[in-house]
Amino acid sequence: MKKKDLLKFPIKHLDLTSIDGLDQLLRGFEATSFQSRNLAKSRIVLDNMEKDETATIFLGIAGAIVPGGLRKVIRDMIKTHMVDVLVSTGANLTHDFIEGMGFHHYIGSAHVDDKTLEDEKIDRIYDTYVDNAEFETVELTISKYASELEPGIYSSREFLAYLGSRLEDPNSILRAAYEEGVPIYCPALCDSAIGIGLTHLYAQGELNGQGERIFIDQIRDNYEIAQIKLKSETTGAIYVGGGVPKNYIQQLEPLLDTMGYREVDGHKYAVQITTDDPKWGGLSGCTFEEAQSWGKITKDAQMATVYVDSTIGLPLIVGAFLQSNKDFDRSRKFSWIADQLERIER
Amino acid sequence: MKKKDLLKFPIKHLDLTSIDGLDQLLRGFEATSFQSRNLAKSRIVLDNMEKDETATIFLGIAGAIVPGGLRKVIRDMIKTHMVDVLVSTGANLTHDFIEGMGFHHYIGSAHVDDKTLEDEKIDRIYDTYVDNAEFETVELTISKYASELEPGIYSSREFLAYLGSRLEDPNSILRAAYEEGVPIYCPALCDSAIGIGLTHLYAQGELNGQGERIFIDQIRDNYEIAQIKLKSETTGAIYVGGGVPKNYIQQLEPLLDTMGYREVDGHKYAVQITTDDPKWGGLSGCTFEEAQSWGKITKDAQMATVYVDSTIGLPLIVGAFLQSNKDFDRSRKFSWIADQLERIER
Amino acid sequence: MKKKDLLKFPIKHLDLTSIDGLDQLLRGFEATSFQSRNLAKSRIVLDNMEKDETATIFLGIAGAIVPGGLRKVIRDMIKTHMVDVLVSTGANLTHDFIEGMGFHHYIGSAHVDDKTLEDEKIDRIYDTYVDNAEFETVELTISKYASELEPGIYSSREFLAYLGSRLEDPNSILRAAYEEGVPIYCPALCDSAIGIGLTHLYAQGELNGQGERIFIDQIRDNYEIAQIKLKSETTGAIYVGGGVPKNYIQQLEPLLDTMGYREVDGHKYAVQITTDDPKWGGLSGCTFEEAQSWGKITKDAQMATVYVDSTIGLPLIVGAFLQSNKDFDRSRKFSWIADQLERIER
Amino acid sequence: MKKKDLLKFPIKHLDLTSIDGLDQLLRGFEATSFQSRNLAKSRIVLDNMEKDETATIFLGIAGAIVPGGLRKVIRDMIKTHMVDVLVSTGANLTHDFIEGMGFHHYIGSAHVDDKTLEDEKIDRIYDTYVDNAEFETVELTISKYASELEPGIYSSREFLAYLGSRLEDPNSILRAAYEEGVPIYCPALCDSAIGIGLTHLYAQGELNGQGERIFIDQIRDNYEIAQIKLKSETTGAIYVGGGVPKNYIQQLEPLLDTMGYREVDGHKYAVQITTDDPKWGGLSGCTFEEAQSWGKITKDAQMATVYVDSTIGLPLIVGAFLQSNKDFDRSRKFSWIADQLERIER
Repeated sequence: MKKKDLLKFPIKHLDLTSIDGLDQLLRGFEATSFQSRNLAKSRIVLDNMEKDETATIFLGIAGAIVPGGLRKVIRDMIKTHMVDVLVSTGANLTHDFIEGMGFHHYIGSAHVDDKTLEDEKIDRIYDTYVDNAEFETVELTISKYASELEPGIYSSREFLAYLGSRLEDPNSILRAAYEEGVPIYCPALCDSAIGIGLTHLYAQGELNGQGERIFIDQIRDNYEIAQIKLKSETTGAIYVGGGVPKNYIQQLEPLLDTMGYREVDGHKYAVQITTDDPKWGGLSGCTFEEAQSWGKITKDAQMATVYVDSTIGLPLIVGAFLQSNKDFDRSRKFSWIADQLERIER
Repeated sequence: MKKKDLLKFPIKHLDLTSIDGLDQLLRGFEATSFQSRNLAKSRIVLDNMEKDETATIFLGIAGAIVPGGLRKVIRDMIKTHMVDVLVSTGANLTHDFIEGMGFHHYIGSAHVDDKTLEDEKIDRIYDTYVDNAEFETVELTISKYASELEPGIYSSREFLAYLGSRLEDPNSILRAAYEEGVPIYCPALCDSAIGIGLTHLYAQGELNGQGERIFIDQIRDNYEIAQIKLKSETTGAIYVGGGVPKNYIQQLEPLLDTMGYREVDGHKYAVQITTDDPKWGGLSGCTFEEAQSWGKITKDAQMATVYVDSTIGLPLIVGAFLQSNKDFDRSRKFSWIADQLERIER
Repeated sequence: MKKKDLLKFPIKHLDLTSIDGLDQLLRGFEATSFQSRNLAKSRIVLDNMEKDETATIFLGIAGAIVPGGLRKVIRDMIKTHMVDVLVSTGANLTHDFIEGMGFHHYIGSAHVDDKTLEDEKIDRIYDTYVDNAEFETVELTISKYASELEPGIYSSREFLAYLGSRLEDPNSILRAAYEEGVPIYCPALCDSAIGIGLTHLYAQGELNGQGERIFIDQIRDNYEIAQIKLKSETTGAIYVGGGVPKNYIQQLEPLLDTMGYREVDGHKYAVQITTDDPKWGGLSGCTFEEAQSWGKITKDAQMATVYVDSTIGLPLIVGAFLQSNKDFDRSRKFSWIADQLERIER
Repeated sequence: MKKKDLLKFPIKHLDLTSIDGLDQLLRGFEATSFQSRNLAKSRIVLDNMEKDETATIFLGIAGAIVPGGLRKVIRDMIKTHMVDVLVSTGANLTHDFIEGMGFHHYIGSAHVDDKTLEDEKIDRIYDTYVDNAEFETVELTISKYASELEPGIYSSREFLAYLGSRLEDPNSILRAAYEEGVPIYCPALCDSAIGIGLTHLYAQGELNGQGERIFIDQIRDNYEIAQIKLKSETTGAIYVGGGVPKNYIQQLEPLLDTMGYREVDGHKYAVQITTDDPKWGGLSGCTFEEAQSWGKITKDAQMATVYVDSTIGLPLIVGAFLQSNKDFDRSRKFSWIADQLERIER
């Protein structure tokens, strides 16, 4: 590349006097630098992913997204079918369930005496509080709901859909996913208050000798989500944080590869919002370029990474998208996924 | 507090001319500042934890610890019973298995064209490479080993002990844990090459109609590990990275609380080595003070956090510990845990 | 504090369907968590600071703010007198000067072969490019402008005002500050292309034996800015990045204290946008609470810190402020500062 | 590159049972991954740099290195002439001076009520304390020492050498540099307690009408340090933190280029220890690759960056170096630099 090709597009300094909405701001960020430009790129990739009718879109959420105040953003992404499949930590689903029962998270402080909070039975999540007693109510409620199910083997998706069906709160992620037929996978379900609720139930059975009970089958989860990937023409991934949800969606191509489906490609679109970093070597912070070496992302993928707290980054790109795509509805995907799942189920 | 009480212990500037070994360096860090002092504190807490005969010690590992070159450090911690229970991501166990089969990780570069690597079928982990073909061999081997087991319900601990029994490499984490009776839990087992191997097996069964197969029961894992915590006089936790392993060990007190064991305390000792940060609100980076508000850590716990890449931090504190505790052997714990597990098992 | 007092204000989940502009978004962030809430707090502190007629406001900028695309944001803050005094790194003023001469920064890539760029004489700033030849033109131009000045002793403020007077670009920071009488201080002026220009001039004088030349007097800078602080009823500080500009504005209270003005208080308002962190012990990342121990910030100060890339954070809080304060003009400060400077000058 | 060339050097897992000293640990890190391998690389580059007899070595220190407990490490690097030129923030020299007067820094806590500290007149630096009264004593002492100098124009190097000559503490950085003839540059001298001391003196002169006084001439600093670079056959740079010291040493090649010395190359060796990151676009965190695009670092330079708190990273690489180079003495450089400075001076 020669100088004249390299110096082609000048930085255009952001002019706040001509910016009103999120859409304009994100357009402005296309010609600035550093993480603001990466935010603009993320929004462009999101835009292209959403408008690709052939793409099944997986959303992975890790970190305290719901305590962070993004519950309705995620719920709206499900309601408008911006996402076709959700993979979540157990914690975010627990926190959704807490609010689904009418409880709340509360504005707190990060600079507080935690021993006082312990005395008052208040659980802290950085600058946000939850009532410990409500947490336990939730665990026992989940235990009770689980006991309503027929003994048998369930994928986490099936179990979470049942939990969603038992909530009435229209702003619930679990409820919205249930209503819209958007599958939710939680690979480490046991590692959460939902898992605690199930363990409570298990312990009762164990102690009183009842053998019949429900199982959450992780491998069934793998098989199901692999089928969705397999039957999709193309796929896209959105990662809010890293952890298990990111790795789980990233491993779909290697999984299908080993299952013998050599022709399946990695994701064609990928966006991540993260505060982690590649230099520590972990999967949570790794680049999509690294993922290309594994085949998890296609060589010609559209991809963008932005390093910013997700409570700032996600509202900006989703907000800008929604402003420029009024009445967006991608629900044609609904029946397709639901059909798939029904066929996979038995 | 008055000035004379606040200004009591002067910073002693590190004198490298009088420092030879890791033990001396870490002692020197006790009177410096910032993360070096936190490293020294971590080592002191580790020391006290190891020497407390009543303490059951849980180690959580997340991030690319094995590709990072710390496989033998973890293996040695198991062999000397510095840890009684290991909770791991699936990835680290997979990478241990890769080497257990005689394969390797390779010194690579973070600045490389990943598309070339994809063409050469080399998987990149930041600055380290793995042969993609070997990865798949591992997945199929795991599938094969799993097929050797009787159909039935297994905790991840039971399944991983079996994998350990099938390896012969004395430097293997899985093998050492099997030999020493140190239980390994992997809550998100499906989210790894081990999970891929199991899904491969599942898919074969699914496709050819065989019903009988093995299940990995997450909730059984919860029940088992809760019993270990319940029956321990005191407990300590060491976290190398965050993610599911940290949360899983942290949730033991809330889990037992909901199960009705109100009298069970949180961990009495806690050390974490992390590159994450509390300010993003996630569990991976949260402080132990925050954990005290939940009761996960006792109010009077000895605890320390050091912010440093684990490939630097872990060798320093474990190396210093081993230098000052030659022939350390804490294996009296062995029979105790093994006994517990046997009794839990059936 | 009791539970009922601690759990008073619930998190209100962000509703993107009811958010259009930056003002609404920032209002929404007041009841979310983590860095989005800190962003909202920063905006509130900014708002209160701007509306306090007694407050002289110091802005410190470090990091690649101008290459980052925020030149016009800073320029507008000067033009509307949102800030009364600017303290900057030399680099940002250099980059402003580059554009003031009609040159540009260009959209580039962070993933590029830097040796190719070196061959093409393109300087890279992460994902942004500058033409090396233009850089040198700027240095020689600054040398020439400096040679136009009468030999003598200048504060950096005086010298920078002269540079501003020689630019015609209405979007220039230097020009706007000159026009508005907003003083700019650059404590490490020599550490920049401006310093290179002056050294070029110095070398010519040195070599040909001319003794008469201009001096930039750092200590005169200190004296001047201390007078501004001294004569202000109250003061506020805005930090975009850390480095010398932050420390320089923070040290005003200790400086006046040592000069004998014991009654002078620290800043009453303080906002910082940073990607650094307190845990490394440096001044750039330190908290305002730490600053209170020094007396740099008053005990009852309004203060907020947000951890985010400044190319994202600054436009959000300034944009929200401007949207909710149309036609904001704080120029009554102008004559006051100008008067002070004139009186200080001689 | 083909697979067989890419997969050549296996990761060798760290074996703590065979590691005693820092040298062994750092050798072990050569075949691990992530930041431990970068630490090993940094030590190798340091080693090569030190052993290159043609290399003049510049050390830049930013962040709270002295409060951090590394005062003697820096002092020893000067005493053994591991470095030929030091560029520092004013703060580190101030903190050195504090201890040089017999005062101390104290082990404190990062979790403390800063308002209480303010009441007790204790200044906090993260987890370390200083007595505010001693700080002011230092400022007035510096003012007094400065008043002893003949009125005239001084580079910061000359002024700091004088301060060094007035201290008797053999562990002082300033003293050691004075004794060894190692020049110290402080481009933003005014931005520190040293600057406060000088401003105190200035204010006295200003108020009582005395015109004669000392000036610190930044541009003279530039000219001097440029001459050292110019007359060096090759150069190396060590950065502990970023900020002005890093930029100042990095700008030597562009400075000489603009001064007409087109043939001068960038640094041939470069090591940095940082907790900043390239992705925010600032100079403090930027890569040496980026610096190559500017010509600040030669295309074939040996260079390494390690992301770690300097209180951990610096002792490890310097300690390992000293263990493997007993009785290291590079003082042949002394007379050379001293000669240069004498010739530059007049």
